[in-house]
Amino acid sequence: MENIFKKIISKEIKSHIIYEDEYFLAFLDIFPLAKGHTLVIPKKEVNKLFDLDIETYQNLMLLSHKLANSLEKAVPCLRVGMSVIGLEVPHAHVHLVPLNNMNDLNFMRSKLIFTNEELQEIATTIKNYI
Amino acid sequence: MENIFKKIISKEIKSHIIYEDEYFLAFLDIFPLAKGHTLVIPKKEVNKLFDLDIETYQNLMLLSHKLANSLEKAVPCLRVGMSVIGLEVPHAHVHLVPLNNMNDLNFMRSKLIFTNEELQEIATTIKNYI
Repeated sequence: MENIFKKIISKEIKSHIIYEDEYFLAFLDIFPLAKGHTLVIPKKEVNKLFDLDIETYQNLMLLSHKLANSLEKAVPCLRVGMSVIGLEVPHAHVHLVPLNNMNDLNFMRSKLIFTNEELQEIATTIKNYI
Repeated sequence: MENIFKKIISKEIKSHIIYEDEYFLAFLDIFPLAKGHTLVIPKKEVNKLFDLDIETYQNLMLLSHKLANSLEKAVPCLRVGMSVIGLEVPHAHVHLVPLNNMNDLNFMRSKLIFTNEELQEIATTIKNYI
């Protein structure tokens, strides 16, 4: 898959943004494993998470921590899980997924489908907790 | 499940340790999803990763970054994945898993079985790259 995140960062492709600053972007995964499934990415294009420079990596993890706590308040769940796989899009990204069971972080299972309006509503709810 | 990690930290239960200092411990998962599957934990007993104080969380993530790079050199893989679920053991832990495909980070699939000798050999190989 081409680097779709580049087009999301440039706004060439619309996404449901949760958070944005000069260096990072967080938005709802369009193929969510659970309601509120969020992707947190650096704007800098680096393929592997562990190849990021330490400062960017640490700030990405700090932002993920902050957003995970917002997610946990915004979406009913037992806790928020975090996963980094990165085999599909060659741009480092952190998955934050509200979990109610182990299978909620199983990337092999079929994804949920929400309408654009539903995604926008979820994004707005999460933003209210940041 | 009771907090088995407490017994691993106290050495009441033997594990294949990759790294240890005053605050953190890293050891091979006894039910690995892939060869080299490692758990990184704070010695401090906190249930949820995102409930850790920021300093401990940041240092845990920094150590995970360092160990992921060692793992990638020690075990043949496309990259190292990271996952935090935490529904099974109530003690924050980071999974580092050498990935060759998406299914290598699927916690719903059956786990691999290695002998104690094989695990010790894997641990020794990883330690040589730290």
